[in-house]
Amino acid sequence: MLQNFDTLKNACSDQWQAYIQHPFVAGISEATLPTPAFQHYLQQDYLFLIHFARAWGLAVYKSRDMNELRHSLDNLKTIVDTEMGLHVAYCREWGIDEASLHDLPEAQETLAYTRFVLDCGHRGDLLDLHVALAPCLIGYAEVAEWIATRSQTVTVDNPYQAWIDMYRDEDYLEAVRRERLWLDERLAEVSPARFAQLTTTFRDATRLEAAFWQMGLDAAG
Amino acid sequence: MLQNFDTLKNACSDQWQAYIQHPFVAGISEATLPTPAFQHYLQQDYLFLIHFARAWGLAVYKSRDMNELRHSLDNLKTIVDTEMGLHVAYCREWGIDEASLHDLPEAQETLAYTRFVLDCGHRGDLLDLHVALAPCLIGYAEVAEWIATRSQTVTVDNPYQAWIDMYRDEDYLEAVRRERLWLDERLAEVSPARFAQLTTTFRDATRLEAAFWQMGLDAAG
Amino acid sequence: MLQNFDTLKNACSDQWQAYIQHPFVAGISEATLPTPAFQHYLQQDYLFLIHFARAWGLAVYKSRDMNELRHSLDNLKTIVDTEMGLHVAYCREWGIDEASLHDLPEAQETLAYTRFVLDCGHRGDLLDLHVALAPCLIGYAEVAEWIATRSQTVTVDNPYQAWIDMYRDEDYLEAVRRERLWLDERLAEVSPARFAQLTTTFRDATRLEAAFWQMGLDAAG
Amino acid sequence: MLQNFDTLKNACSDQWQAYIQHPFVAGISEATLPTPAFQHYLQQDYLFLIHFARAWGLAVYKSRDMNELRHSLDNLKTIVDTEMGLHVAYCREWGIDEASLHDLPEAQETLAYTRFVLDCGHRGDLLDLHVALAPCLIGYAEVAEWIATRSQTVTVDNPYQAWIDMYRDEDYLEAVRRERLWLDERLAEVSPARFAQLTTTFRDATRLEAAFWQMGLDAAG
Repeated sequence: MLQNFDTLKNACSDQWQAYIQHPFVAGISEATLPTPAFQHYLQQDYLFLIHFARAWGLAVYKSRDMNELRHSLDNLKTIVDTEMGLHVAYCREWGIDEASLHDLPEAQETLAYTRFVLDCGHRGDLLDLHVALAPCLIGYAEVAEWIATRSQTVTVDNPYQAWIDMYRDEDYLEAVRRERLWLDERLAEVSPARFAQLTTTFRDATRLEAAFWQMGLDAAG
Repeated sequence: MLQNFDTLKNACSDQWQAYIQHPFVAGISEATLPTPAFQHYLQQDYLFLIHFARAWGLAVYKSRDMNELRHSLDNLKTIVDTEMGLHVAYCREWGIDEASLHDLPEAQETLAYTRFVLDCGHRGDLLDLHVALAPCLIGYAEVAEWIATRSQTVTVDNPYQAWIDMYRDEDYLEAVRRERLWLDERLAEVSPARFAQLTTTFRDATRLEAAFWQMGLDAAG
Repeated sequence: MLQNFDTLKNACSDQWQAYIQHPFVAGISEATLPTPAFQHYLQQDYLFLIHFARAWGLAVYKSRDMNELRHSLDNLKTIVDTEMGLHVAYCREWGIDEASLHDLPEAQETLAYTRFVLDCGHRGDLLDLHVALAPCLIGYAEVAEWIATRSQTVTVDNPYQAWIDMYRDEDYLEAVRRERLWLDERLAEVSPARFAQLTTTFRDATRLEAAFWQMGLDAAG
Repeated sequence: MLQNFDTLKNACSDQWQAYIQHPFVAGISEATLPTPAFQHYLQQDYLFLIHFARAWGLAVYKSRDMNELRHSLDNLKTIVDTEMGLHVAYCREWGIDEASLHDLPEAQETLAYTRFVLDCGHRGDLLDLHVALAPCLIGYAEVAEWIATRSQTVTVDNPYQAWIDMYRDEDYLEAVRRERLWLDERLAEVSPARFAQLTTTFRDATRLEAAFWQMGLDAAG
């Protein structure tokens, strides 16, 4: 059997489900998430995006040819030229002004996940870096998809609707498809030992994503 | 006034004191720390040492001349050739066998601090890396010194005596003096803007060290 | 006296002049450069651009805030989204098709300069990386300026006119001004010891740029 | 067929032979190499060793477990604690004092090879780094072996005898065996596409080693 992104996900199905269907996500779906939880999440997610942009910059550096380089640059541009702006505008709607974002102390959960990803990238090769980034990029599309399919999801006057829609946007889904394709091509040809190594990275990254949701919940006390 | 390591410490005095005199440390001093708290700390500290060895390897890479390179290599050898062995032997005394250390899941606090240090090193230059490492290397000597000077410290049958002594050992203190000297020489000539940058790094690293003690306490429930 | 980019250049005036007014450049100015010299240069410059794009990706990673990150990203986009395309089109005019560029063996001069820059970036901080990149980005504008002011310059039917114009283009000069400003702000506040370090980097990078011109001349043998 | 170090070597047999049996090496074997050629080589080899020590420091950083880390640290210690000293002492015998080594301008050939290796290490993973380092570590043993087996080799009063013996020393050969074993284990399980990538790295590194010999010859005019 060929390995691909689904094999990777299935090898960590417990952690993956705990992340995709985390109580924080259920709270968004059911419109029951306390506002302070979401606000704390949004603030830390701003810092998160900065380090993710740095990670895609590192991916540009680690590319072996122009195809790889352009693929990483596209993801970098999506974050800096599109998502950062949307995020800042979105924060404003939730009462968080941009100036306050700049002086924000970084939560331990943000530090742990972002720096873990960067270290995976420096220690390993471009594939290690992509695998460490995948739970974020690809996971958010699955989160939005899961919300969309739940009967419990509140679709009328859900204050989190714009957030959900952001990750169901066609441009976003196209970036997700490109990334899955990139991963599938490379995962197909790694050895079992290498795949085991990448599975550990993916599992740890997924665990740290779930901890990031939990940080939001904890902030609401 | 010339900047040096003390200036750096004084610029973060709240965080520094919260780290050096953390309840975990007081518990060691007063022999009241619950055994599971110490055991959890010891296990995670093993993983910590591996990433610190990696950080000193990175410092070897980032050196600009043989003096800098030898200084980093000395610290690397101290960790791998001396401290790792002591640590494994010491874990055994506390009922933690070496095999179990290899399969240990890494706690978020360990991930956060170690990867933060490594990212400081990759993003900045050798001085950024040393400053991020300093709360550990130099701080542990201050921790042991603080314990030694407290009237509350239990000095008879304190189960943590060997741990305290490890960081009052003359070889360890010599390494600490070398590191302070290295930092003092370099901090003396940086600009105020650069010093402010390094202060932020030092403060964050100190905060993450305190969180590492807290992780131990939390493990004891 | 405040240090700035001009101080840096003046500290390496011999090497800088040897680079800006290299016989290869004079040959372009006077329309006497042998075609094979220019073709070899163009081919290797394609490989050069790939590694320079990687270097700006590294600069994105090494940024400490969004301003720094956007500045590096702008330079990265200029190379990948603009210069690469111009370069490939320009190569075609000189009889070099794109497919042949992909299998090109990398000359030692290309290897030496590009990997030197990348190592400066990894070993040091963002300023080290920019200083190592400056002889290329800023130097090419000075090269084109020098050509424009020489009485010997052939301005009618000079086969190299399009190349000269590329580096007198207003967009290019704007990128150069931005980069000089960035450098001037940071160089103003470094210590003399640090400035000496950066001068060595700048001198070596300039020397390697001159060797890159020489490689072109040698190819025409 | 399993891939191993020999497969790698055979895939680059032309470049490998051009390196191992380079006229510079033949000159050592036949005691005909001009003294200035050897002196220039020795001086640049001192700079080479510094960057190779940095490369093994990077390998320590990139290690995934303590076995890998100790293996890299052993190689790092061999260079810094043993070879550097031998080299400096050896330089002295050839009339090159240590002080002069510190101010040496770095030749383009030294820059090209050392920075290429470091970039391979940063861009790829630990295996890429080892493969880029292999022509040096393992190649020198083959060079000494080739010399030992040639009928043309001058064995009486050959001024280069001590140099030849250095790479036939049992400790050195043991380090070479350890490294081959390390490579064989990892090469056995990579995919054909990955092996092709590593072959390119190995071929380029071998080519740059041959250019390093050539630099010595060229210095003798």
